[in-house]
Amino acid sequence: MVRIAAHQDTDGRLIRLGVAIRNKRKAAGLSQEALADAAGIDRSHMGKIERGERNLTLLNLCRIASATGLRPSELLKDADL
Amino acid sequence: MVRIAAHQDTDGRLIRLGVAIRNKRKAAGLSQEALADAAGIDRSHMGKIERGERNLTLLNLCRIASATGLRPSELLKDADL
Repeated sequence: MVRIAAHQDTDGRLIRLGVAIRNKRKAAGLSQEALADAAGIDRSHMGKIERGERNLTLLNLCRIASATGLRPSELLKDADL
Repeated sequence: MVRIAAHQDTDGRLIRLGVAIRNKRKAAGLSQEALADAAGIDRSHMGKIERGERNLTLLNLCRIASATGLRPSELLKDADL
């Protein structure tokens, strides 16, 4: 699948964040669908976020962080951002 | 002016981030226009971000953080996020 946001993400920041989200989700024992539902984010959109294909918004970052039991700043730090 | 993103931001997270960005910008001795230009963000959009009126994207958060000499995670931490 084409990464829509890739042309803006030459440093791989969205990919690093997606990996950090996936790692935290798995550590929490959640499926991707369960995390999407807990965060109130469309399941397809969540898949694209985890693959670094979407330039997510701050409020969606906050929702994902909350659903994985982290602060948004901690999730970014995990992604080396 | 109506805050477009306010209906999604019941906890004032965008407003807190806007205040943190403004404080860091002033501490760096930058005008709002200079920060917008340094971050490659439209000046009008930057004004709305500082007022908490826009749900900014992760890559714009990274650009603003870089222009103020911070990491994105530090900027969120400053905003208590």
